[in-house]
Formats: sequence, structure tokens, C-alpha cells
Amino acid sequence: MAAALSLARRIVPPGLQPLCSRAQAWGRSARQRPGLLLAQSRAFSNNKILVELDEGSGVATVKFKSPPVNSLSLDFLTELCISLEKLENNRGCRGVIFTSAIPKVFSSGLDITDMCGKSTEHYVEFWRAVQQMWLRLYGSNMVTIAAINGSSPAGGCLFALSCDYRIMADNPKFYIGLNESQLGIVAPFWFKDTFVNVVGHRVAERSLQLGSLHPAPEALQLGIVDELVPEEKLQEKAAAVLAQWLALPDHARQLTKSMMRKPVLDRLVTHQEDDVQHFVSFIAKESIQKSLRKYMEMLSKRKG
Amino acid sequence: MAAALSLARRIVPPGLQPLCSRAQAWGRSARQRPGLLLAQSRAFSNNKILVELDEGSGVATVKFKSPPVNSLSLDFLTELCISLEKLENNRGCRGVIFTSAIPKVFSSGLDITDMCGKSTEHYVEFWRAVQQMWLRLYGSNMVTIAAINGSSPAGGCLFALSCDYRIMADNPKFYIGLNESQLGIVAPFWFKDTFVNVVGHRVAERSLQLGSLHPAPEALQLGIVDELVPEEKLQEKAAAVLAQWLALPDHARQLTKSMMRKPVLDRLVTHQEDDVQHFVSFIAKESIQKSLRKYMEMLSKRKG
Amino acid sequence: MAAALSLARRIVPPGLQPLCSRAQAWGRSARQRPGLLLAQSRAFSNNKILVELDEGSGVATVKFKSPPVNSLSLDFLTELCISLEKLENNRGCRGVIFTSAIPKVFSSGLDITDMCGKSTEHYVEFWRAVQQMWLRLYGSNMVTIAAINGSSPAGGCLFALSCDYRIMADNPKFYIGLNESQLGIVAPFWFKDTFVNVVGHRVAERSLQLGSLHPAPEALQLGIVDELVPEEKLQEKAAAVLAQWLALPDHARQLTKSMMRKPVLDRLVTHQEDDVQHFVSFIAKESIQKSLRKYMEMLSKRKG
Repeated sequence: MAAALSLARRIVPPGLQPLCSRAQAWGRSARQRPGLLLAQSRAFSNNKILVELDEGSGVATVKFKSPPVNSLSLDFLTELCISLEKLENNRGCRGVIFTSAIPKVFSSGLDITDMCGKSTEHYVEFWRAVQQMWLRLYGSNMVTIAAINGSSPAGGCLFALSCDYRIMADNPKFYIGLNESQLGIVAPFWFKDTFVNVVGHRVAERSLQLGSLHPAPEALQLGIVDELVPEEKLQEKAAAVLAQWLALPDHARQLTKSMMRKPVLDRLVTHQEDDVQHFVSFIAKESIQKSLRKYMEMLSKRKG
Repeated sequence: MAAALSLARRIVPPGLQPLCSRAQAWGRSARQRPGLLLAQSRAFSNNKILVELDEGSGVATVKFKSPPVNSLSLDFLTELCISLEKLENNRGCRGVIFTSAIPKVFSSGLDITDMCGKSTEHYVEFWRAVQQMWLRLYGSNMVTIAAINGSSPAGGCLFALSCDYRIMADNPKFYIGLNESQLGIVAPFWFKDTFVNVVGHRVAERSLQLGSLHPAPEALQLGIVDELVPEEKLQEKAAAVLAQWLALPDHARQLTKSMMRKPVLDRLVTHQEDDVQHFVSFIAKESIQKSLRKYMEMLSKRKG
Repeated sequence: MAAALSLARRIVPPGLQPLCSRAQAWGRSARQRPGLLLAQSRAFSNNKILVELDEGSGVATVKFKSPPVNSLSLDFLTELCISLEKLENNRGCRGVIFTSAIPKVFSSGLDITDMCGKSTEHYVEFWRAVQQMWLRLYGSNMVTIAAINGSSPAGGCLFALSCDYRIMADNPKFYIGLNESQLGIVAPFWFKDTFVNVVGHRVAERSLQLGSLHPAPEALQLGIVDELVPEEKLQEKAAAVLAQWLALPDHARQLTKSMMRKPVLDRLVTHQEDDVQHFVSFIAKESIQKSLRKYMEMLSKRKG
């Protein structure tokens, strides 16, 4: 019972840059690289993220609509962070349901094109955006529900794991997991911390080493998701669960959430720059670039 | 196998005040507030806690008998701490079964009347008593079994979680959980640490945010309690389980328990005074006082 | 994804002595105690550990063959460490299956004769060997599978817990667990850390306090082992599981494993000498020696 009420609900937690300054920084770097201008203006017109806010209930629905597979590109992440910041700062919004507007996929994870054949500056900018997305989502004061209506590997899985509650469509063809090691890369420590918080050490260790993608029923059994419902009932169920969470007084719930998640959030905040440097030097390695190119070729052949 | 045998079984762990000095301090403060004298003398006559010790088997039964709902008032906590200290110091006592002498309720948790409309000194004294109770119970050298024969919200749940083993009456009308957030308040970090040690991070995070009160069958499924038995078999079962634990050599079992629980005990010991200050400044807030008054009115209406 | 690829796969992690120096030290101490010479030469002829390496698949099978019960004696541990080091340094070996060549027992754990009535030097040497075994196994870059074809108490259980995956023969007469407290001794903190990583805090706390030996079906239910198969299918299944793990790129899998296990490995490395001193002063106590002698007498009567 001991704990001070947070005096300011909407304080930006440490480690989070206000997005206006991010957008400015991003604008600057774009001016230096004219080819990116179009992408930027799209980013700000929010055309990859559909946000509907019902001020009556305080519930927002955030739909990912970035064909073909909702990959977490720099553009997508920037839009997402701006949307999250707007909602966080809107006192009329108390909870968010995240879902996909694209059939069969929730999110395919980090966009490989942002990690392949780009400049060091691009890698830095991209990784900062990934960090910001997670800090904002995992540390959100809002109730966050993932309505996982399709597959959700790697970064898509991290996104779902960072919500308060995960409901997945009951379809064994939809899978979820942190499969980074399958691509020859390693999930960062904060992906791992988030995963361990959800499924415990033993399941996380095995699943991360094997880079497992778990079909929905297995994901439920391992605790990666909290429940399965038929796909046609998913949005309805998510709304019902969110209503239940919103019945709680905001302050007490937020302080409780913060108490649970702060140690893991603080770890990234403390090592944020090291983590960027780590990523950049890792991803720029020729062996990793080669393995990512191979993976992209494999993907494009599969489509062809 | 490496680990020194504790040379003194009954050393008072750090953070625990010997209760004689507590009682003196309490006596002093009582002298200053004559209205409390009656309550104090009752406290020392141990009329809220019934203790039966069978020196043959080394088993004590501690029954909570503080109508109407065994709430953890300052008086109750003081009696409880004195009883625990006496048993801990009695070499004839190796294990304790905690149960309720009141139908349908194990303990309703911290007494709201001790947190509402009282002086700062009272809040300090009350919170120290809550801390002492937990330090003594969670760090006990004795085997501690909770025979949960009724509902057990909030502080009552903490009490049960701090035992070595929890057996609950198999009655879906009996519930258990840390429901603080329902009252607009936040479980302290050491309530949370104790809960996470029992059910893991994911279950604790959700249950604490929602302030869930789990019916007995759900509590079993989540691991909050270790087994359910029909209410009429509860005492018999608790005795059988305790006998099994007492078959182990005391020293090895005590050192093992201490190894498991020390990090979480040490965290409170290190932050004990901060935690008192936190509680006092939190509970004295007008918004919290208002919400507690409202809750008490709701309770008294329900009774009426 | 952020994390540097380890540049040298086969670097000896901190805390691990290269075994050549250990063997030298051991040779020296043996020269001082001629009675041990025979045992030493056997140790180096590897007659307690049968190693078969299939360079085609990169799979080694390590069979424990130290009658009557594969106890982890100083000789056995030394052979085991040397075998593990050789495999670790052999680029042709990527994964290991550990199993027993003795019916009904995987390993009976630390050899009590090495802990009873010996010199301080012997205790130091023995405990260092136990530490080295665990540091080498828990920190191995290879995929490690325990094919548990018999009972596996105490140190035998630790060995299995330190592998990446545990498959046990589906026989309720085979049991596994850290039963140290039954003998009046306490599992060291790194046994406990390894156990908590596998089964979580609650199960570990209860099982360690009670010194429980869990029959195979219960071990599966608690998560101590990952699956049960009929004994005649055990080796086949272990090979199939290992093949699945070896389908992953080594680098990513190794870095992931290291990320998961490093905190617990580092804890022993940091406290390695303290842990030796702890063990030696604990085991040399007359009360402990007495209890171990009693246990050995009980064992020899049971055999007779």
C-alpha cells in the first residue's frame, strides 16, 4: 500500500525522447537525404496506422495497415510512436487495442530492408526508433491489449509481449515467437527480459535458442498469449477484456504496472546508447549482411 | 552443499526489532494516548490469537479470532508478532499451522480503521507492525502452513503467501488475492516480491493490476495456493503436510529456506524506513483518505 | 538483434581453469599421496566416461560408466571435465548427449566418500572439480541433452538441470531431485540458481526444503524434465531432439544461450573461492561428518 501516487500521469519516462524532437531530428536527417522525403511525409500523415478513439469509453483501436505484412520499418515505427504519444497525452484515452488490418498477419517484425545495405546513420536511426517504440509501449500508462489476428514473429511478437494482455485468434496456422536465432541473429537483452517476464526463464531459454515460432495453441499453453478466441470474436473479446481492466482506478493500476515493469525498462534506459552501438556494429558485419540478403532473396522467391 | 550451518538458530534477523522493545515503545506511546490503554492490555492478554502448542510433536496451531473478519489491526498485529516471537524462541516448537476461528474468513487484510483519520504517529506505528509481521513470518525458521478456511484478500493473502505451504478449503465462494488496486491503493514492493516468488511475473502483474480476488479453484490453478481440500478435512490435511516437512533435519531446511528468501527479505530491511515514510505520506493524502472513507461506508452499508 | 557475434567460439570463459593446468596440479598433489596414483592414471585413460563422436553429424555421446552408481567422484569429475573440454575444443563436435551405461541410474550425485574423512586439501580439490564441471557444462557452447535413463538425485540432478534439454525414461521408479536437505546438508547457491532457472521460485523453494526426489511423471509435471519417453526410445528421441537444435546457426544459438545463463554463471565465478572455503569449513564439521558416515553405513547395509 505504500507508494506515492504519481503526481503527473503524463510525465515522459526517462529514456523516451519527446517525439517532436525525434521528428525534427528525423526531418533534419531527411533533408540531408532527399530520397527519404516522401516516406517522411507519409509517416506524418499516419497512413500505416489507423487510429480510432472513442472518447466516450476512453478506448482507442490502433490498426496496423502496412502491406504486405506490417513490417516494423522506420516509417512504420515513427508513425506508431507518434500515435502512441498522442494517445498517451490524451486524457480521453485510457486503453488501446492493437490489431492488424491485413489478413493473416499481425506484424512480421522488424523490417529487414532497414537493416540491409544501409548507412550507419540509418541503422542508428532505425534502432533508436525500435527502442522508442518499446519504451513507450512497455511503459505505457494506458491499458494495452494485443488482439493478435495473424502471425507475429520476432519484433511482432515483442510488440504483443509488451502489451498488458494478449488475445490470439484460435487458428493453428497463425504462429508467434522470437525467432531471431533462425536468421542467425540474436534477440537483444530487452527482448529477452520482456519474454522472461511473460513465460519464465526455462521456456524463454529454449524458445529463444531454437528461434521457435509457436502455433497459437502452443503459444497459449506456454503462456506467450493469455487466451485464444475464434477470429470472428477477437475484437469483441478484446473490447470486453479492456472494459474489465478499465473498471480499475487508473492511478493504482498505473503505479502497479510501473512497479512491475520498471526494472526491465530501466535496464534499457541505462544501456540505451551501448545497445545502439551494439546493434550498429553487429548488423554492419559482412557475415550478417550476407545472411540477411540471403533471407530476403528467399522471401522474394517465395512470393514469386 | 557448501554453506555454513547457522550457529544460532534463534538469532533475530536484521530488520526485526525484538518485540519486548516494541512492546515498550508501544506502551510508551499508549501512555501518551490513554484511550488506547484498553486495547493494549487486550493485546497482551492474547485474546485475538489462540495459540495451542503440542510440545510432543513440536506443532503449534495459531488461530485468528478477531471478529468480525480477522482484520489485521495494530492490536491484532502486535499480538500476532508476540505469539510468533514466543514460538520462534521456543525450541519445543518446530512448525505452525495458521487458521481462522471465524467462519468463512481467514483474514480480511489490513484494518482500514487503522489507516483512516488517524495521526501520523499512528500510521508509523501501524506500518511498522505490518513490516514486523511479514519479516517475522517470511523469515521464520519454523515450518509455516496456512490452512485457509475462508476468504483472504489483501493483507490476508500476503500472510498466506508468506507461509511455506498453502492449503485452502475447496469452496468456490472463498477467494484470495492482492486486491489493493481495487481500493485505489498500491501493494507495496515487498507484497509484490512475495507474490512474484509464488506465482511468477506474468500472473503477478495481471493479478495485481486488476486487483483480482481469485475463487479457490482459480487460486489453485494459478499457484497462489498449493492444494485444495474439503473444508472438514483441512486441519487434518495441514497436520499431515506439516508432519512431512518436520521429517526433514531442521538445520538444512532452515538454511535452504533462508537462501531462497533472503534477497526479498533484505530488500525490505534495506528500505524499511523509506517504506514507512512512503506509506505515511501516501495514506495521509486527502484523495486516499476519501477513497478509504467511501470504501468503509460501502462496507457498513453492506452489513446494515 | 543487437549483440556482437563472439569472435572466438572456443574462448575459455572466466572461472574455468584450462584443464591441462588442473591435471598438472592434480598430478602434483597425487605425487604427494601415492595411494591415489592408480586412480589418477585411470582418470586419464578415461575409463569411467565413454565418448563416441560422430564427426559427420557433429554429435557426441557421453556415457557414464562408473559402477555401481555413477557417483561424481573426484576421478569421475576430472575425466568428465577433460572429456567436455576436448569436445568443446573440437570444431567437429556441435552437440552432446549425456546418458548412463549403468542400468537404473543416471548419476547418484557427488561421491560421499570424497566428502568424508578426507584432508582439507582433498575437500578443496574435490569442490573445485565440482565447480569446474558445472561451469563447463552450464556454460557450454555445445548443445547439451540429458538422456536420463535412471534415477538422478542431488549432483546427478544438477548435471541434468545444467543441460539445454532433459528427456527422461518414462518409469515411475526413476526419480530426480536436489535432495541434499534429506542428508542434513544444503544445496549451494549455484545449484539453487540453476534449479530456479528451470522450475521457478515456488517449485524450487518447496522441493529444496523438502529435499524431494520426484518420480519421472512428477518431474515432468513440475518442469524438472522436458519430456518422458519409453526407455527403449530414449536414445533415438535424444538424437532426434539434438538434430532439431543443430539445425540452428551455431553463433546465434550460442550467444542466446550465453545471454540467458551468464548472470548465474557470473555469480559463481565471482564467489568461487568463497564457495570453496564455505564447502570446506562446512563439510569438515564433526556434526556433518557424523551425518555423512551414518548415511554411508545406511547405504552399505542396504546393499548387504
